[in-house]
Amino acid sequence: MTAHSRPARAADSRPARPVMLGQNQYGKAENRVVKITRDGDTHHIKDLNVSVSLSGDLEEVHLSGSNAHCLPTDTTKNTVYAFAKEYGIESAEQFGIHLARHFVTSQEPIHRARIRIEEYAWERIATSDANSRFIGADEVQHSFVRKGQETRLTEITYDGERWQVISGLKDLVVMNSTNSEFWGYIKDKYTTLKEAYDRILATEVSGRWRFNWTDDEQRMPNWERSYEQVKKHMLQAFAETYSLSLQQTLYQMGSRVINNRSEIDEIRFSLPNKHHFLVDLEPFGLKNDTAEGAVYYAADRPYGLIEATVLRDGVEPEIPVDLTNL
Amino acid sequence: MTAHSRPARAADSRPARPVMLGQNQYGKAENRVVKITRDGDTHHIKDLNVSVSLSGDLEEVHLSGSNAHCLPTDTTKNTVYAFAKEYGIESAEQFGIHLARHFVTSQEPIHRARIRIEEYAWERIATSDANSRFIGADEVQHSFVRKGQETRLTEITYDGERWQVISGLKDLVVMNSTNSEFWGYIKDKYTTLKEAYDRILATEVSGRWRFNWTDDEQRMPNWERSYEQVKKHMLQAFAETYSLSLQQTLYQMGSRVINNRSEIDEIRFSLPNKHHFLVDLEPFGLKNDTAEGAVYYAADRPYGLIEATVLRDGVEPEIPVDLTNL
Amino acid sequence: MTAHSRPARAADSRPARPVMLGQNQYGKAENRVVKITRDGDTHHIKDLNVSVSLSGDLEEVHLSGSNAHCLPTDTTKNTVYAFAKEYGIESAEQFGIHLARHFVTSQEPIHRARIRIEEYAWERIATSDANSRFIGADEVQHSFVRKGQETRLTEITYDGERWQVISGLKDLVVMNSTNSEFWGYIKDKYTTLKEAYDRILATEVSGRWRFNWTDDEQRMPNWERSYEQVKKHMLQAFAETYSLSLQQTLYQMGSRVINNRSEIDEIRFSLPNKHHFLVDLEPFGLKNDTAEGAVYYAADRPYGLIEATVLRDGVEPEIPVDLTNL
Amino acid sequence: MTAHSRPARAADSRPARPVMLGQNQYGKAENRVVKITRDGDTHHIKDLNVSVSLSGDLEEVHLSGSNAHCLPTDTTKNTVYAFAKEYGIESAEQFGIHLARHFVTSQEPIHRARIRIEEYAWERIATSDANSRFIGADEVQHSFVRKGQETRLTEITYDGERWQVISGLKDLVVMNSTNSEFWGYIKDKYTTLKEAYDRILATEVSGRWRFNWTDDEQRMPNWERSYEQVKKHMLQAFAETYSLSLQQTLYQMGSRVINNRSEIDEIRFSLPNKHHFLVDLEPFGLKNDTAEGAVYYAADRPYGLIEATVLRDGVEPEIPVDLTNL
Repeated sequence: MTAHSRPARAADSRPARPVMLGQNQYGKAENRVVKITRDGDTHHIKDLNVSVSLSGDLEEVHLSGSNAHCLPTDTTKNTVYAFAKEYGIESAEQFGIHLARHFVTSQEPIHRARIRIEEYAWERIATSDANSRFIGADEVQHSFVRKGQETRLTEITYDGERWQVISGLKDLVVMNSTNSEFWGYIKDKYTTLKEAYDRILATEVSGRWRFNWTDDEQRMPNWERSYEQVKKHMLQAFAETYSLSLQQTLYQMGSRVINNRSEIDEIRFSLPNKHHFLVDLEPFGLKNDTAEGAVYYAADRPYGLIEATVLRDGVEPEIPVDLTNL
Repeated sequence: MTAHSRPARAADSRPARPVMLGQNQYGKAENRVVKITRDGDTHHIKDLNVSVSLSGDLEEVHLSGSNAHCLPTDTTKNTVYAFAKEYGIESAEQFGIHLARHFVTSQEPIHRARIRIEEYAWERIATSDANSRFIGADEVQHSFVRKGQETRLTEITYDGERWQVISGLKDLVVMNSTNSEFWGYIKDKYTTLKEAYDRILATEVSGRWRFNWTDDEQRMPNWERSYEQVKKHMLQAFAETYSLSLQQTLYQMGSRVINNRSEIDEIRFSLPNKHHFLVDLEPFGLKNDTAEGAVYYAADRPYGLIEATVLRDGVEPEIPVDLTNL
Repeated sequence: MTAHSRPARAADSRPARPVMLGQNQYGKAENRVVKITRDGDTHHIKDLNVSVSLSGDLEEVHLSGSNAHCLPTDTTKNTVYAFAKEYGIESAEQFGIHLARHFVTSQEPIHRARIRIEEYAWERIATSDANSRFIGADEVQHSFVRKGQETRLTEITYDGERWQVISGLKDLVVMNSTNSEFWGYIKDKYTTLKEAYDRILATEVSGRWRFNWTDDEQRMPNWERSYEQVKKHMLQAFAETYSLSLQQTLYQMGSRVINNRSEIDEIRFSLPNKHHFLVDLEPFGLKNDTAEGAVYYAADRPYGLIEATVLRDGVEPEIPVDLTNL
Repeated sequence: MTAHSRPARAADSRPARPVMLGQNQYGKAENRVVKITRDGDTHHIKDLNVSVSLSGDLEEVHLSGSNAHCLPTDTTKNTVYAFAKEYGIESAEQFGIHLARHFVTSQEPIHRARIRIEEYAWERIATSDANSRFIGADEVQHSFVRKGQETRLTEITYDGERWQVISGLKDLVVMNSTNSEFWGYIKDKYTTLKEAYDRILATEVSGRWRFNWTDDEQRMPNWERSYEQVKKHMLQAFAETYSLSLQQTLYQMGSRVINNRSEIDEIRFSLPNKHHFLVDLEPFGLKNDTAEGAVYYAADRPYGLIEATVLRDGVEPEIPVDLTNL
């Protein structure tokens, strides 16, 4: 291809009046990569959605449109797929670390790489003895059904020296059908809410937790085991807390994780209070008592939204405060 | 409340030129009802989204706006919640049958009721021995996490004489990582597709199946067990079929259900072919062989869409043909 | 590529017990095609989402997996893009007719083609006099912003002899802030609704209308003009009807279209009653009178759902009854 | 209501090991409020989605579950509706300022209030002369259709002393069908992208801009006019920029706003590069030249994602860097 020059009509992008470029980043978002690993007839699956975001010496691409320092987003996409083949996907975190290190160390203008990954879990389909004759095999080991429960998340940030790993999950809907109260709150001119001594507490957990692994010299956590354990502790704390407020439950969930997982220093939750209102059935001559098993209306909007960070003592918070797009 | 008369400004709705009213129906859609049942400290949950649709002698409400034959949609909503308390929710099907019978038998102008229900499944949160001291109880039996896999569906239609029950599911994503081929197809001027001898086969199952229970005199199926069995047979047929086309897999799934479940006469699937394309890694000096475990790009759109009905021999089809909103 | 034979492990798909294949169809769904037309420096845009669905002599692909009669869905995708270039996109309807005719007439096993199309509207970005010096041109004619109001729809079905064209729209949200009442309805045991003499009436219009053009011998309608006119009549009828029920408004919208557009014989609406509830502000010492301009809570779920067909006298209905995925 | 005491089973929430509570906030999210204003027969509409988030002296609600400092989220909801009636909704920003001031000044434990608002625009339905006889009025002035283009946003933060107002928009889809190139970029081992000299540039604008109004002593901007002007300048800069990269276009959009709107000091964009790929039609004997009007495939994922802040010289950035939920 012959050399191409800037068109005469191209804008002179340097504005007359003083305007500055601030923080900027770019990359290819939502690369959907599925990696199958075969161990004889037994297959394994990793199903990821990978987003790449690069920062660095990129002022000119904004000011003059010169792409001399710009690694195309298309190239970052290709790298994701090539690395999945070349290095495999041991875990979302490990894969993100590979990618982030590559972009920062291989391209001089790139000073920081951030890799965000969503992971979707699958489980095996149990096959039938009776029907195994159809396939002439003892057991099918290449058939999967998507679990569909939570979405696992991770975000890897690397500036050439320090690693920041924030993992998490979203879309995990939980409910306690009792052991939740809400009373003793401020009553002002606009308060009409009645106190509740036995209510449903339900939320859709969105959580992010930060690892204290920041340096290649440190021993790396077992990312897969850590995830399973954090999820387990969060769920158990939710179940086992007799709750006087969703804030209290949130704090229990967070402190349970910090206390049980030494690799994690900070955790933040964004918990919508998914309201389940007792339906008033008195007009129809029916009592709707919680003690006897009640009927609830599950409301969509509005919803309470409770957000907080829980940290190991003495640690500086780093997880961004606003996890929602509200 | 005093009598209210039609406003002078109200339109004379009877058009000058001949226009007819055709099929019509109305009701309250998407009533979110959650019913907790308590068996001592052990709680159970039913989580439904119920839509009511009524037809009958309703010409005047369209032509003149007279609501004399109109049971308000708000009343149908109240009935859903009251029935959940009064009769409980044994299964989505049983609950829909209660509701449909009520509307048709209690309101003279209502000649047909259709109840559509979505059901969301929950599973118990396993609690910890170590933490049970927090709550002073052996085991928490009121804490749940939403399974999040498929959405269960049912549609009950009753005209005062005959029942039609069509149950189903949606959002069930499945994948075979091998044992799928596609070749030997028509090649015309616009065909560029290469034949495939080892591909991923993935789909998001949307299925509806019709029961041959139509009459109060018949013995009613066990709706809960039937659902579990249909899902199991569908998944196993998907896993155990060596597939030469998604159509073939669909037919196997359908015939497996018809052959194993005598209570079901007809089943229809709408199966998007969720394409997983082998990524071309040759430009990067990498082989991407399926036999060695390959890397795929999971595409969003476009997608193949395969739809078919499978029936018991001699049966008339009743399930609507178009299950998508395309 | 050498010939490929059926694998020994492939299932014998013919079930022992009698099961039949019913209605079936297949094709590539949601092909996103954008066509730019250049008229000098003035550009025009057509932005479509095209779904192809074919039926015919396709039993073997289901029973044995033989694809000998199967035109790949990938080929149908290619055809969509090639036709967009070869014939342009005059209108969604015209484009669908081209495609449907092609599949039925060019492939012997294909007996019916159905083309569904969504169309997204764009409008030009007005450019500035003051800034035109930046580009050295009088006016930019290649810049667009998506209108984002309704989504236009059409469905073309062709069996080699007869055409059926059903066009429509969805996502068109409308509101009357007065001139709506609701009273005089049935009161049963479960009725608690208070009568309303001045309420908001709001809905999200989903409509489909069928043309009486069915034959190549007939003069074809002006599809673009017809769409604009139908939308206009629907909106005006909504605005100008003093409403005693949403059913009455629906009927006015339908009959206005039938009476004004001779090319259309049948129209069906699915109208959710998007409830706007007067907020009770009495606890705060405030009157919330509609006459003085009131505050409403816009609810999500549940919602009334009103559906009906309006037809030209003597015409047989053909539009499917259930337009929702409930 | 009689006094209620903490249940014996309630958890002692103070963990044995040292865990800290970090940033926390709570409130009612997504209060859907519609306000109709009547000016004789002419009605006006404001349609908002309001989210309240409060911070302050709230440690105890997390640690012990004591709600003594907690204004219920339900009360914040009531306040939104009451204020809409009491003060009207002049603009989203003005309304948010009213609310934020109220929560901080009326409740001692509340030290900071953040109000986030989405606003949906409506336009009048033009009614017909011919049909005006139906209503006995010259013109209907109470009928609206939702514009459906972008969603307007604002976020008001108040700590009792300083105001921060960040307004914005999302969902605004724009396209240039020419005057976009991309070449001269880095080529590494993973680069396969071909240079482009005439491509489509399309994006879905998500932008936030910060006002330099921070103090009650300053003159308040005209929020409605400011919004219209910012949107106009953004669109015009998009249309009028001959683009060598989406980054360059972004910078032009930002600097145009900063240069033209003195009330705004900082603006940040998150711009997905909505790829429109030229379809390869050569296999079908067709040329697909951009110069002659080409056919494109509009891809969903992956997409480039370009994000940057543009600021007035000397100003400190305050808009959060990550506006997406990736």
